[in-house]
Amino acid sequence: MTWEEISQQACARLDASIPSQWRIPSDKLPPAEQADVMDFPYKSGLFSERDIAITTSSATDIVKHIAVGEWKAEDVTRAFCKRAAITHQLTNCLTVMMFDDAIDRAKHLDDHLKRTGKTVGPLHGLPISLKDNFNIIGKTSATGFCAWADEPMKHESTIVGILRDLGAVAYVKTNVPTAMMIAESVNNCYGRTVNPRNRMLTSGGSSGGESALITAFGSPLGVGTDIGGSLRIPAAMTGIFTIRPSYGRFPHFDARSGMAGQEAVGSVHGPMARSIADLKLFAENVVNARPWLKDPKCIEIPWRPVTLPERLKIAVLWHDDVVQPTPPVTRALREVAARLKERGHEVVEWDARGHKTALELLAIFFTADGGKSIKKILEAANEPWRPEMAAYEAANELGVYDLWQLQRQRTDLGKMYLDKWATSGGVDAILLPTTPYAAVKNGQFKYVGYTGVFNILDYTAVSFPTGLHADKNLDVVPADFKPLNDMDETTAKDYDAAAVHGMPISLQLAGRRLQEEKMLEVAERVVKDLIW
Amino acid sequence: MTWEEISQQACARLDASIPSQWRIPSDKLPPAEQADVMDFPYKSGLFSERDIAITTSSATDIVKHIAVGEWKAEDVTRAFCKRAAITHQLTNCLTVMMFDDAIDRAKHLDDHLKRTGKTVGPLHGLPISLKDNFNIIGKTSATGFCAWADEPMKHESTIVGILRDLGAVAYVKTNVPTAMMIAESVNNCYGRTVNPRNRMLTSGGSSGGESALITAFGSPLGVGTDIGGSLRIPAAMTGIFTIRPSYGRFPHFDARSGMAGQEAVGSVHGPMARSIADLKLFAENVVNARPWLKDPKCIEIPWRPVTLPERLKIAVLWHDDVVQPTPPVTRALREVAARLKERGHEVVEWDARGHKTALELLAIFFTADGGKSIKKILEAANEPWRPEMAAYEAANELGVYDLWQLQRQRTDLGKMYLDKWATSGGVDAILLPTTPYAAVKNGQFKYVGYTGVFNILDYTAVSFPTGLHADKNLDVVPADFKPLNDMDETTAKDYDAAAVHGMPISLQLAGRRLQEEKMLEVAERVVKDLIW
Repeated sequence: MTWEEISQQACARLDASIPSQWRIPSDKLPPAEQADVMDFPYKSGLFSERDIAITTSSATDIVKHIAVGEWKAEDVTRAFCKRAAITHQLTNCLTVMMFDDAIDRAKHLDDHLKRTGKTVGPLHGLPISLKDNFNIIGKTSATGFCAWADEPMKHESTIVGILRDLGAVAYVKTNVPTAMMIAESVNNCYGRTVNPRNRMLTSGGSSGGESALITAFGSPLGVGTDIGGSLRIPAAMTGIFTIRPSYGRFPHFDARSGMAGQEAVGSVHGPMARSIADLKLFAENVVNARPWLKDPKCIEIPWRPVTLPERLKIAVLWHDDVVQPTPPVTRALREVAARLKERGHEVVEWDARGHKTALELLAIFFTADGGKSIKKILEAANEPWRPEMAAYEAANELGVYDLWQLQRQRTDLGKMYLDKWATSGGVDAILLPTTPYAAVKNGQFKYVGYTGVFNILDYTAVSFPTGLHADKNLDVVPADFKPLNDMDETTAKDYDAAAVHGMPISLQLAGRRLQEEKMLEVAERVVKDLIW
Repeated sequence: MTWEEISQQACARLDASIPSQWRIPSDKLPPAEQADVMDFPYKSGLFSERDIAITTSSATDIVKHIAVGEWKAEDVTRAFCKRAAITHQLTNCLTVMMFDDAIDRAKHLDDHLKRTGKTVGPLHGLPISLKDNFNIIGKTSATGFCAWADEPMKHESTIVGILRDLGAVAYVKTNVPTAMMIAESVNNCYGRTVNPRNRMLTSGGSSGGESALITAFGSPLGVGTDIGGSLRIPAAMTGIFTIRPSYGRFPHFDARSGMAGQEAVGSVHGPMARSIADLKLFAENVVNARPWLKDPKCIEIPWRPVTLPERLKIAVLWHDDVVQPTPPVTRALREVAARLKERGHEVVEWDARGHKTALELLAIFFTADGGKSIKKILEAANEPWRPEMAAYEAANELGVYDLWQLQRQRTDLGKMYLDKWATSGGVDAILLPTTPYAAVKNGQFKYVGYTGVFNILDYTAVSFPTGLHADKNLDVVPADFKPLNDMDETTAKDYDAAAVHGMPISLQLAGRRLQEEKMLEVAERVVKDLIW
């Protein structure tokens, strides 16, 4: 089979797994040129009020409703399966649908609760969507590759088992870019996932199937991964919340990778959701499940509740000396900083020392095998390189000696940054862009420096929607704009105020390594202060 | 200068730094053929009773005596400087003597205590010896290389600053093998350190300057490092205590390495001492100093006190399926296991699954740069490869792709081992040899598999003297001995019961990753049960 045939078959199998009752009738299908499909569930008449009520609830509320018997896990699961199936038809966000398994599992959970009066765990009955690279026995983990599109997995990822033990219901897997190494979710097998708020725009990547699905209420909570921004970029492109934890906090064992064995930059997984509370629900329960007894790379740190001082010290990074944020993001930074000051927080400046080096190191670490790992998987299906992956295709393999020198540099950079933090007079968090963009047209995402720096440093970072939206009237490139370099110039030139008008603007809050508890509290506090 | 001239000058400088009053008069110098020099301080008449009382005290007692004003830091420091200088003349264990600096520092500490009534920290006035690769500003860190023998360092290692802040007094640095990658302490610059209990035998390596010094009471507490057994091997060869912590528990930033940037196996540092209590003194205080605020690789886990159950579950690994321990070690295992059972502990068996793979991986990771890192440093002084390092000299550099595949294998091995532990029914520790040997003639140490496995797994491991000693009458290779392979055969053939007669026999207790608190408690309990 050619890779095109593999792709066709995979897409056909996926399409065939949509139950007929959840298939959008052709007369109701929004035309391709319709950008915003967020209101489809409300206007299509395909959803009951109850379906809507369930699917627009937070994960936190869902587990409460189920635990007290107000909702049945089966009904909740059915509602999300349906909404996910519909969202997929609008945004191409799924790779695997496991609706029958999920409903069976939900029935079993309902039965358990009825019989014993007890939930099986704190996530009892909660549907959770999973990025395509989390392995489930008997299901595929294509991870953006044609060669893997029809290979049922024989192992399950550690996090999958932990979530099941906590009571969660796996029901879909979500689309990613090839090897999860593009900042949009596009690959030669399943194609492109688009942003449900505006289908001309990307939902980001690599966890962009998740971001599209969660944003459109097709999932209350999803699990993505992040090695250069793959949780935070899609969260920011769609206006949802995520936390990039430090390596070893959540279990990552046996999650599929296109670059297996690469350790210079640790890939981590994290939750994506529509509120900080839901991120906490995931984080606290996963850590309390003692993942260090199951994943050899997990660190034995129990969940540590944090009490913040009234007044936070927030350091603002206006830009990273490489790419200046586009106008909506700069405005959001300005308005958020001003509001935090108004609310009594101390707001100081943060300089970009080390950011450029971090980005350079990141790029070299990713391609240090000369792209061999990815190439071998592509070749297994005669699949061509996507143009977004030109750097991998062109890369030369490094020898281990050179890798060691780069790892030294990374450790030295980490020391410099840590010393800077230690002498910052108690900065609680850095406030900075998640990306230079509020949103990006499909195919135009180019710069990952604002997220990648924290992968190199292994810091904890939360991306959150500010409550502000891009506005073509306010957000204009200033007349005196001076580009710092070619990438900066390209970013400014690509910026299209009309194209991103109305899109939510996200920012990032970064804290030191292994500060998951604190950073979630900081983000929650900041978000509360941003009710405009 | 030739490397020989560099070596001569370095040794001459070192020799010249011995104050004349602490130089052993030639008529008192034991002849080269005298094996045991442990009684020299008592028989030579060079030490006062007070000197002896101070230097034979534990670190724990020393800090107590100083804190309450019974002893002055200056007297303690002088006594250890003197005993270290003498020990060096008997075993060639030092590389740097900083006696004047140390005494000045001790005076300053005495003054502080007198003036304020307070110690500067919990290690106030405690002399601590440092392995040669810990950097002190203005002092050399030759780390076994001629090229580095006359280069005063411009940075200090993070642990050096932390120990100073805790009140410790740095006074000597100790010898290591070339690049710290030989299991004996021998190099082309400073030569060979020998075992003070028997100078025909090695003090082990790579922290073998430390083990010789501490064993001969020239230091109450030292800091070594371990990447394949470099703390545990010298501790076992001399009969002292050490803990190999998991990576990230103690700060290792800016410690010098011959293989800088190598991360597939993390080099760690740890304390070496004559009691578990002294290891705890170090470990607890270093962790409570919050090293994660200074070392980007340190993990934020505070010291966690542990309460053990009355009855421990100890799993015995009789041999690792590669090299069978020599007779004294097997006897010690048997006697210790029997005693632990007698004392009410549960003793079960542990199999060697994974140990051989771990050893193979360790060897490849160490030479993955084709020996380039070490070669460059050797070449800078035209220094020849030592024969013990033939594997580095002959190694071919790997490409990064191959390294990634090996790192995958290591993670899979870690998962297998963790699962085995999780299904072991609550094993508290594995009891196994530290090395196949009770002791080894200089130049004959060959097998590091028993220690290296826990570097690959990153587990916590304590080496402790069992209180048993090699006995040429008891410890005979059984008539029906069948070697498992060439290395096993060589080990049995090299075993010389008469040569190691009377030497202490050590064993190892290993626990899961990041179990420093628990493993020290387990070891303390086991040691209490081993009063014969």
